[in-house]
Amino acid sequence: MRMVDIISKKRDGAALNREEIHFFIDGYVKGDIPDYQASALCMAILFQGMNNEEISLLTDEMCHSGATMDLSKISGVKVDKHSTGGVGDKTSLVLCPMVASCGVKVAKMSGRGLGHTGGTLDKLESIPGLSVTKSDAEFIGQVNKIGIAIVGQTSELDPADKKLYALRDVTGTVEAIPLIASSIMSKKLASGTDTILLDVTFGEGAFMKDIKSARELARVMVDIGNGLGKNTKAVLSSMDEPLGYAVGNSLEIKEVINALHGNGPKDLMELCYKCGSIILMQAGITHTEREGRLMLSEAIKTGKAYDTFRKMVIAQGGDPDYIDDPSKFRDTSFIINLVSNSEGYVNKINALTIGEVSMKLGAGREKMDDIIDMAAGIVLHKKVGDYVKKGDTLLEIHTTRSNYRDLIKDLEGAYELVSKEVTPHPVVWEVIE
Amino acid sequence: MRMVDIISKKRDGAALNREEIHFFIDGYVKGDIPDYQASALCMAILFQGMNNEEISLLTDEMCHSGATMDLSKISGVKVDKHSTGGVGDKTSLVLCPMVASCGVKVAKMSGRGLGHTGGTLDKLESIPGLSVTKSDAEFIGQVNKIGIAIVGQTSELDPADKKLYALRDVTGTVEAIPLIASSIMSKKLASGTDTILLDVTFGEGAFMKDIKSARELARVMVDIGNGLGKNTKAVLSSMDEPLGYAVGNSLEIKEVINALHGNGPKDLMELCYKCGSIILMQAGITHTEREGRLMLSEAIKTGKAYDTFRKMVIAQGGDPDYIDDPSKFRDTSFIINLVSNSEGYVNKINALTIGEVSMKLGAGREKMDDIIDMAAGIVLHKKVGDYVKKGDTLLEIHTTRSNYRDLIKDLEGAYELVSKEVTPHPVVWEVIE
Repeated sequence: MRMVDIISKKRDGAALNREEIHFFIDGYVKGDIPDYQASALCMAILFQGMNNEEISLLTDEMCHSGATMDLSKISGVKVDKHSTGGVGDKTSLVLCPMVASCGVKVAKMSGRGLGHTGGTLDKLESIPGLSVTKSDAEFIGQVNKIGIAIVGQTSELDPADKKLYALRDVTGTVEAIPLIASSIMSKKLASGTDTILLDVTFGEGAFMKDIKSARELARVMVDIGNGLGKNTKAVLSSMDEPLGYAVGNSLEIKEVINALHGNGPKDLMELCYKCGSIILMQAGITHTEREGRLMLSEAIKTGKAYDTFRKMVIAQGGDPDYIDDPSKFRDTSFIINLVSNSEGYVNKINALTIGEVSMKLGAGREKMDDIIDMAAGIVLHKKVGDYVKKGDTLLEIHTTRSNYRDLIKDLEGAYELVSKEVTPHPVVWEVIE
Repeated sequence: MRMVDIISKKRDGAALNREEIHFFIDGYVKGDIPDYQASALCMAILFQGMNNEEISLLTDEMCHSGATMDLSKISGVKVDKHSTGGVGDKTSLVLCPMVASCGVKVAKMSGRGLGHTGGTLDKLESIPGLSVTKSDAEFIGQVNKIGIAIVGQTSELDPADKKLYALRDVTGTVEAIPLIASSIMSKKLASGTDTILLDVTFGEGAFMKDIKSARELARVMVDIGNGLGKNTKAVLSSMDEPLGYAVGNSLEIKEVINALHGNGPKDLMELCYKCGSIILMQAGITHTEREGRLMLSEAIKTGKAYDTFRKMVIAQGGDPDYIDDPSKFRDTSFIINLVSNSEGYVNKINALTIGEVSMKLGAGREKMDDIIDMAAGIVLHKKVGDYVKKGDTLLEIHTTRSNYRDLIKDLEGAYELVSKEVTPHPVVWEVIE
């Protein structure tokens, strides 16, 4: 078998079989197949696509390209939730404690932020002392003990994805749906969970620009997951604006704490209740969405959800004083209010712009080795549907960098005001199962 | 400027500008742009194509990626001829001495064979003593003195093509017309000639499988050449069967000598007269095709064409005894007649099969460092249109390898016999100018 023949076959629109996909993934991970052949194949896949069987084979081969987690020592149903990423997306940090406090086991491996999207691990690390590095045994032990752990991927899982993702990033082949789907699903499958809930975001701040491509990606991933024996569902959620009010690591943690105390932003909580009630059904704990919503709302009211979050922070070495009293979190040198010089109803808030500016304020990474300012970011005062008068504060800029002045124009441009009243879209548009 | 943005731009179907194409070629030759980005771009070009301006810019940048030849010290019009390759294609070796003996200056850089196609340099080297390695000064001196030199490309010319061609070969991106066109034309332009005649072959043994794609490639190359100030024309010639009777290095040289003595195969001579008369007009020596054909036929009859060939062989160190008495060429250990066990008119001879078998008999290279058996190859006895009786010899196998028995089935399959009389197609189908 020769790699050039596999590339040519895909280039000409034919479907690859298991032997060919195995030859590629195995050879690529071992270093027998060079990057220049892998990138040519990725580009051919981008143009010619892959059928569901091919994507499933690719996912399976990637999943088994390294070690896989064995979570059988955790009793109960292990659930995993994955978001394709958004701006201000702290859903996992609210949702996971909520469902864990209802009895499902959350053994979650998360990622770091790059570009305009933040990462769950970075947000967690803004809590002083907290560590996201655990051995497999510690990870399993923590989930068995308190029902939840959110840690970084151990380096041995899915080396194929690690290598391919880095390559796709610099060769214009990130956008191929078969490659996005197999990248996400191979990691989820390698992490050994029983059920998977995917949050596929769409809109300007998201990976998928419109609902059509989000639906396509969700459909493919749900089919792969179910085909490979994992109960998999997906919600399609819009990114017409950042999720919640806070964007930036410790700023978002503070919003998470508020949410777990019952004071969460409407859109964020809507997403958490929707996802949470699906997860509880996937775990066999409840039978209807209504039942799940009641149970989750009870978990918030009684403080069980917050308590679960607090236990996780402590188990991972974090200082609970900070979450018990969020005013302890360090502030940035500058906190600037951006006021509106026009008026109207907020029709849209460009999440991509908010994410990019937030990164430039110090809250994110342009390159993988950039260092994050945990306190930096943006806090919105106005969301879609709100009425804005001249002189109203649109948002707060939190930064220690003095370059923020150059970014004000971008931020002003992110707000689209209209004269007619605006009713915000629901966050969750569809469930794919 | 970032290479990933250039790749994405082409992936999305936009045209690249000079700065972007320069950034790519310059960076790739310098090693700043890695192979994996270059191969992704090549694949994107394969799918999205390039407009004529882009191809012309790419050709120009490749042409100037290294040294270019200065042929101004050669008096007269310098012509170059290039074939996209075929099986048994010894046209240049007959045609170049013919036109050189009529007064045009042939300063030709040729290539070696790979896969099922032979190379002019390998064929020449089957003449004992002959060298195709010359310094620029020797090369120019020889053309000035005897009107003709056929040598290998000096290594400094067009390094971009050398690097890109090797990459395309292993990444399934050989087939992209913009890349084929720029590869051929950049080398021709770097070699400093005044006029260019392209022989674009099509059929099973050729690069282009049908006349439509051959026409498209020819059109693009002719437009590039003329756009960059070189008088460029192309003929489209069919490869329904190998050209002439001989396939293999010294076997073809013997056919060349016969042709120059006036005993050439019909198809080969038709191609030489057609190309030769166009070249004479390009050089301003004649005004009509008829005039050129007469002059060329005179060159053959009077022995001027053969004499020019002989002078070239001597100038390049070859032993003239071999060409004066071709029976001196060494034979292979085995010469086997393949006889027909059916009858009918020859409708087609699969040139690809003949070329591949010939390579396996020792006449060609599978990999660049394979060593050629100069005496090995195939001599056809029957060509398209001939009537074959049972027991007639179809072809002779010349080899020193004992594996030839395994190849007989392939050779038998190469001949397509039909019951109805067959009129061979003309070799040259169209002229593109």
